Amino acid sequence: MGRPVYLDCDTGIDDSLAIAYLMAHPDVDLVGVGTSFGNIDAHRAARNTLDLLALGGHDHVPVAIGAEKPLSGAWNGGPAHIHGANGVGDVELPRAGREPQTDESAADLLVRMAHEHEGELRVLAIGPLTNLARALDVETALPYLVESVVVMGGAARVPGNVTPVAEANIFNDPDAADRVLSADWPLTLIPLDVTMEHLIEESDRATLLAADEPLPRALGQMLDVYYEFYVATYGRRCAPLHDPLAAAVAAVGATPVMAPTVQVVVDATDGPGRGQTICDLRGERVGYPVQPTARVRLVLTLDAPFGPHLIERLTSA
Amino acid sequence: MGRPVYLDCDTGIDDSLAIAYLMAHPDVDLVGVGTSFGNIDAHRAARNTLDLLALGGHDHVPVAIGAEKPLSGAWNGGPAHIHGANGVGDVELPRAGREPQTDESAADLLVRMAHEHEGELRVLAIGPLTNLARALDVETALPYLVESVVVMGGAARVPGNVTPVAEANIFNDPDAADRVLSADWPLTLIPLDVTMEHLIEESDRATLLAADEPLPRALGQMLDVYYEFYVATYGRRCAPLHDPLAAAVAAVGATPVMAPTVQVVVDATDGPGRGQTICDLRGERVGYPVQPTARVRLVLTLDAPFGPHLIERLTSA
Repeated sequence: MGRPVYLDCDTGIDDSLAIAYLMAHPDVDLVGVGTSFGNIDAHRAARNTLDLLALGGHDHVPVAIGAEKPLSGAWNGGPAHIHGANGVGDVELPRAGREPQTDESAADLLVRMAHEHEGELRVLAIGPLTNLARALDVETALPYLVESVVVMGGAARVPGNVTPVAEANIFNDPDAADRVLSADWPLTLIPLDVTMEHLIEESDRATLLAADEPLPRALGQMLDVYYEFYVATYGRRCAPLHDPLAAAVAAVGATPVMAPTVQVVVDATDGPGRGQTICDLRGERVGYPVQPTARVRLVLTLDAPFGPHLIERLTSA
Repeated sequence: MGRPVYLDCDTGIDDSLAIAYLMAHPDVDLVGVGTSFGNIDAHRAARNTLDLLALGGHDHVPVAIGAEKPLSGAWNGGPAHIHGANGVGDVELPRAGREPQTDESAADLLVRMAHEHEGELRVLAIGPLTNLARALDVETALPYLVESVVVMGGAARVPGNVTPVAEANIFNDPDAADRVLSADWPLTLIPLDVTMEHLIEESDRATLLAADEPLPRALGQMLDVYYEFYVATYGRRCAPLHDPLAAAVAAVGATPVMAPTVQVVVDATDGPGRGQTICDLRGERVGYPVQPTARVRLVLTLDAPFGPHLIERLTSA
């Protein structure tokens, strides 16, 4: 068995890539998945997750539904122009033969798994952080039960993707993000600074579409709408690898190079900076001197292009 | 006569370099100076300005005192560890034989000069923007009277110098900055992104100290404390050229290369982003497409190193 990994997600096209990556990784034991609003609503995210798990031969992994809205305030629905109306690029996945857990919430499932795998569980969060914040309420010892936490979210020195400074996962629930990023656990943040630099291209989509297995083919189909959205950002059809890159860091399939531990504060005001991850990079010119109160490991670069590794993993099953 | 330039400043060591640069520039006609709290209090800033003007043979330029605190809230004093207790690195300048204007405030002087040089005045602001905000109240037509405005302030993609995201001039009065950056005039912003990349070194200080004229020698003396402060930032004794670089852009002595016109919003909340200039750089990968409501020209790079040009200008008088 590999390392126990718990996933919290809002499935989502890049979440789908991350789930497929985790299933394909020989050192990963995916022990549970919680879903959240974000790219799509939490119920649909659970449906998508179940269908992807079935397609990847992981029908045994428990899936629980979590938050349908942020800790405070409303949620205005997912971005259908990015992830399609169903969250998976309007691709119709074969329907799995089972339903999400009804007896426990995503937060409860996370807490249960943290106890079952005490000291070993890697928590990977690739959606809004509402479920993790709730789990911290349910079990105040949670930070000391898990091995580590990897979060895809935020932007340090690069523009946001919802506002000029805010990334979607953090913007969707700044209060939850503030709780999670200030909890006393070893947390690695995967911001847009690194995810926007690792891309998959049309040639990669062609490779997925030509695969023997149905899962990579479905992923290739989903990427059509996702690529189209990113033309305005990159000037061509391609996509950044937000969620799969975070999955790879959690699974030790990608190696951070520049990754200082710095103070990170979430802007939870109602001002123009709402949802920004304010990272203290003032030591950048002198090798990031130790910040005594800093707790977030901020991944800014990797040792190698991640796109080729991802495609190879997804098509070599 | 050169172009009429009005300066608003909080003199300050790098303000002193800017004043000396403007006096030495053959195409600049410095028509007035207003002072503000910031690096030092507004009264001391006026004293420093008068003394520098006298040392540079510009005893005719009117100097008026402006704001001693931001539009709202208090001011906690200048950073003596950066600019010395007197604002000019504890160097005792020869005392000028005159005093600041007593009959008009800095805001009033600016408005008067804008009328006297209607359509031609270049306004250069290198301190907190309180005086400019007040001038906009005094004369609502001010944006249409001046030729252009150049402001040293803010940080777009680089860390701040007061907080992880806020630069000192903006942080010192975010409300005033918000007013000035959203007024309907052609405004060029010179943020830390560009000023932190243009340095003067120990060899430049030696050149200033060896000059024949007393003004460059005094500047060389001031730089001692300033260089010492920047060791923590750069790992060696040197200094970035915040204010003189803005002066050079106003005087057309430095040429911006990457300078997109983008939406800039000032964070005037009391949250962790207070004082940040939130710049919309989301079009950076596709050549910054036109933003219809954008009004701020954001200078990110110059065509040449500015340090050598500055030193040559200061020592060739």
